[in-house]
Amino acid sequence: MKPRVLSGMRPTGPLHLGHLVGVLHNWTRLQETYDCCFMVADYHALMSEYEHPERLREHAYQNVLDWVACGIDPSRSVVFRQSDVPEHLELFAILAIITPLGWVERVPTYKEQLRELEGRDVTTYGFLGYPVLQAADILLYRAQFVPVGEDQLPHLELAREIVRRLHALCKRTLFPEPQALLTDSPKLLGTDGRKMSKSYGNTIDLSESPDGIRRIAQTMFTDPTRIKMRDPGHPERCNVCHYWRLFAPAQHAQVWEECRTAARGCAQNKAELAEVLGRVTEPFRAARKRLDDSPAGDRYGMVERLLQEGARKARAIAQQTMADVKAAFGLA
Amino acid sequence: MKPRVLSGMRPTGPLHLGHLVGVLHNWTRLQETYDCCFMVADYHALMSEYEHPERLREHAYQNVLDWVACGIDPSRSVVFRQSDVPEHLELFAILAIITPLGWVERVPTYKEQLRELEGRDVTTYGFLGYPVLQAADILLYRAQFVPVGEDQLPHLELAREIVRRLHALCKRTLFPEPQALLTDSPKLLGTDGRKMSKSYGNTIDLSESPDGIRRIAQTMFTDPTRIKMRDPGHPERCNVCHYWRLFAPAQHAQVWEECRTAARGCAQNKAELAEVLGRVTEPFRAARKRLDDSPAGDRYGMVERLLQEGARKARAIAQQTMADVKAAFGLA
Repeated sequence: MKPRVLSGMRPTGPLHLGHLVGVLHNWTRLQETYDCCFMVADYHALMSEYEHPERLREHAYQNVLDWVACGIDPSRSVVFRQSDVPEHLELFAILAIITPLGWVERVPTYKEQLRELEGRDVTTYGFLGYPVLQAADILLYRAQFVPVGEDQLPHLELAREIVRRLHALCKRTLFPEPQALLTDSPKLLGTDGRKMSKSYGNTIDLSESPDGIRRIAQTMFTDPTRIKMRDPGHPERCNVCHYWRLFAPAQHAQVWEECRTAARGCAQNKAELAEVLGRVTEPFRAARKRLDDSPAGDRYGMVERLLQEGARKARAIAQQTMADVKAAFGLA
Repeated sequence: MKPRVLSGMRPTGPLHLGHLVGVLHNWTRLQETYDCCFMVADYHALMSEYEHPERLREHAYQNVLDWVACGIDPSRSVVFRQSDVPEHLELFAILAIITPLGWVERVPTYKEQLRELEGRDVTTYGFLGYPVLQAADILLYRAQFVPVGEDQLPHLELAREIVRRLHALCKRTLFPEPQALLTDSPKLLGTDGRKMSKSYGNTIDLSESPDGIRRIAQTMFTDPTRIKMRDPGHPERCNVCHYWRLFAPAQHAQVWEECRTAARGCAQNKAELAEVLGRVTEPFRAARKRLDDSPAGDRYGMVERLLQEGARKARAIAQQTMADVKAAFGLA
């Protein structure tokens, strides 16, 4: 049996190139080696979006269409929406009951996230339990591995501490201690050089048309110390050059050299990058168009059926887990 | 349609006379006027008992048998166990997400409970959310009324504040604001004059035999200023006299007068009270014996079936509520 992986994404908006290189490429690779559960983390999304939940459901549908267009295969992996599986909240409640308050208050990312999610009031009781719900997500499927970036390691460590405490309390072993699959996925910066984020308006969405990509690429920040075209560039400081390395690895050495020697100007560099990005995303757009066109007018119905089938598979695992956990704690 | 009432009890041990006069007499009366949901609050119990969950399930069964023996009628009221209805945890999670952390930190009873539950480590993330789970319990059934004592009023006020915030956020009205049914149920003190509690060893259990009651009654504290039998007593300071008022209201005036005039000594007073308590609890013991005897050897199976039927009725209400709440917040 393949080891199991659990990973999820918050449906807070359209997916962009940052999701593609940071998450989705990795997910499609993981499908080869692992038994994968990919979750639309809508309760997690609600933790920051509860003041404007109107589009949450639509974002969930759109994201799943994007996942499938990127190569996530619902017949190989369990693709499901968190809120279709009530067992997540049952396990969340039980883990909440055994988790010392100090453990969640001291998670290093907590205060950082309070700052980062500016414009959103996340000083709620629920948001304090964000990593407890994450632990429940992982443990519910008895996942051995969780793909995470460095910044998420404290959350996974908390999940492991909760597992150990749970085992000590109920005097039996119910779960594997989940391990990190550290992904070396590069962080893709936004067009302005800051973190790529919808709220900064600096994204290139996966669904962007080639024309849209050209228009956006023109606005990208380059090496700020290269004033005139004949100034030599510093590609390592240039966001556009970093995109070249990621999206056209075979050509990037030459492009960087031309930048350094001023054989290539920034305008040309951005225009040619736009063509690269257009080509790279073409298979995605084509796949997404096929999904959107078939069967006519019932795009969301198809996703809903896909999610229902995923929920059925997810719950088959989750209910077995909860039967064991509830028995251990004297619950129904 | 009758207005709905939700009330619950934590299955932490055998029921005693305090439960009878404080809760169960009231519940049997409420059945006449209201559409009642009576809940075995096992998640709430787990919040303080998670370090020793071994007997939780058995306490739940025993308590339900006691409820029925006291006159709670599962064919009129919805008698169910919280952990059979996963919708409680779904609503708990959603309410947690919209509840400001300060609201739960400032609930007046929180610090008091941390102190009261000594010997138990309840400084957990889950226990901080105790009143949020209570709010979910009430709202899930759209209960208009909740029987509470004075000390629980802050929890009910928090539930109302959460309702108002939820309505403001999702721009629709989903719930009635639950109102208190202030019960003037007298507080029954334990045999030593402290709060009646299993942990103090000062209870008279509902299942106590007449002989057991006689033995325990002899140990009860009386008026501490009445040293000799010919000293006049102060019935208002005497726990035994308070029991007389509660359990033999027709005789209590005479008993109190005999105490005041020293016509009745404390030993006689306790011995006669034991007979009163034995008679008062006789119908309960008889009913409980019938339940325990039928059908032979399958006592818990019968309770389990009763609870499953209750869960079916409870979930029919709860699922309708959750469909509305989830739609309002963009969840599945």
